[in-house]
Amino acid sequence: MANLADTEEAVMTNNIRIKVMENPKPVIAILGGTGGLGTGLARRWAAAGYQIIIGSRTQDNAESAAGELRGLMQARGIGLVPVLAMDNIAAASAGDLVVLTVPFAHHTSTLLSVKDALQGKILIDVTVPLIPPKVARVQLPAEGSAGQIAQNILGDGVRVVSAFQNVAAVHLQEGQVVDSDVLVCGDNKEARAQVIELVEATGLRGLHAGSIANAAAVEAMTSLLIFINKQYKCHAGIKVTGMEHS
Amino acid sequence: MANLADTEEAVMTNNIRIKVMENPKPVIAILGGTGGLGTGLARRWAAAGYQIIIGSRTQDNAESAAGELRGLMQARGIGLVPVLAMDNIAAASAGDLVVLTVPFAHHTSTLLSVKDALQGKILIDVTVPLIPPKVARVQLPAEGSAGQIAQNILGDGVRVVSAFQNVAAVHLQEGQVVDSDVLVCGDNKEARAQVIELVEATGLRGLHAGSIANAAAVEAMTSLLIFINKQYKCHAGIKVTGMEHS
Repeated sequence: MANLADTEEAVMTNNIRIKVMENPKPVIAILGGTGGLGTGLARRWAAAGYQIIIGSRTQDNAESAAGELRGLMQARGIGLVPVLAMDNIAAASAGDLVVLTVPFAHHTSTLLSVKDALQGKILIDVTVPLIPPKVARVQLPAEGSAGQIAQNILGDGVRVVSAFQNVAAVHLQEGQVVDSDVLVCGDNKEARAQVIELVEATGLRGLHAGSIANAAAVEAMTSLLIFINKQYKCHAGIKVTGMEHS
Repeated sequence: MANLADTEEAVMTNNIRIKVMENPKPVIAILGGTGGLGTGLARRWAAAGYQIIIGSRTQDNAESAAGELRGLMQARGIGLVPVLAMDNIAAASAGDLVVLTVPFAHHTSTLLSVKDALQGKILIDVTVPLIPPKVARVQLPAEGSAGQIAQNILGDGVRVVSAFQNVAAVHLQEGQVVDSDVLVCGDNKEARAQVIELVEATGLRGLHAGSIANAAAVEAMTSLLIFINKQYKCHAGIKVTGMEHS
């Protein structure tokens, strides 16, 4: 087996093979995994022992982000983590759960390209419908939300769950505790529950927040938080209070 | 002066006259002041020493709510408070600041009826565009939000500020500390600042949250919180976190 360890890639391949056999955790493919939020989520899930596929529009960009993730996990003392790099379509095919975090301008085209690959799966849509330059102003699409657009495009064969829009990417990228909740919206309760498990693996609290129509509230809140960030010079998030009352 | 104290009404009249002279605080008119949120706000502001006008569609309903408010303030040991009862149009004319908290079905008709009376003033719109029976599902109006509808109807002569949509009415009605922030949206920063002062008088933290377009985020969040209330059997609110980062 020694020769398999000669290169990092070989170690990774070997490592993944072992993990696939031993690890019951799903493989998470992150489409747009090279962006701020994708990078942050990949770090959190890799550190929690999930197998990650970084998807990007090009294999090269995905490789670069995957290499950076492996290096960072080693620097943080987590060791070699099973992370692969693929283009978005291959990543969508290979992932058990698929996360979409692309600029809103590429949201529809990316969804159309991976629609077939996603059938039967859960898509976690992290996209926020920001329309530059006024990103601190709520500008929801006519369909209501990016999450609703995804559900409309992908059809009933894909369970779309919206999450993570209100968490500062910079906080996810860092390793520390994030004082922020994740509001999880989707029409299928069991799919929401699976996503809440993934939220908790990142160290945050996930909450059932209703149907995919409710993604509008969370996505709109992102623009409001961007305004607060500018106004008060911070990286704001939100927490749900009053849950101890029963 | 003794004869003026013969009846509660006379005391109130006298009390108000004195307050008008001594008290630099604005008179707050609450249109729809007989509802849950209106009642809660009236109690908080009355306890903080503001002069309140309860507005309702009928003088009778307003009188009844005003009488209840006076009684409760005495029961809480706050003593006689200056509260008047009027129909909505008279209340809108008499208030320095006017608060609108009506069911969404009456939002536009109420605004049209008080449009002239509101010119030059700040309108604090507390209305949430809930469409029964699916109140736990975000159903924003085509204009974006109730706050945006109000600004569109009232025109540039009225500074519409949106606030208080995410605070549980039951928590405002009670006297205790509420662990919830108030996101304050409006196109005029100085008007937002005045409203934030009123928010702080209720004991909550108020935050500048951007233009009136951003009311969509806060109004939508109400439906999401209603879902959470049902799901987790609580009276949820939200707080902005991460503001200590600078």
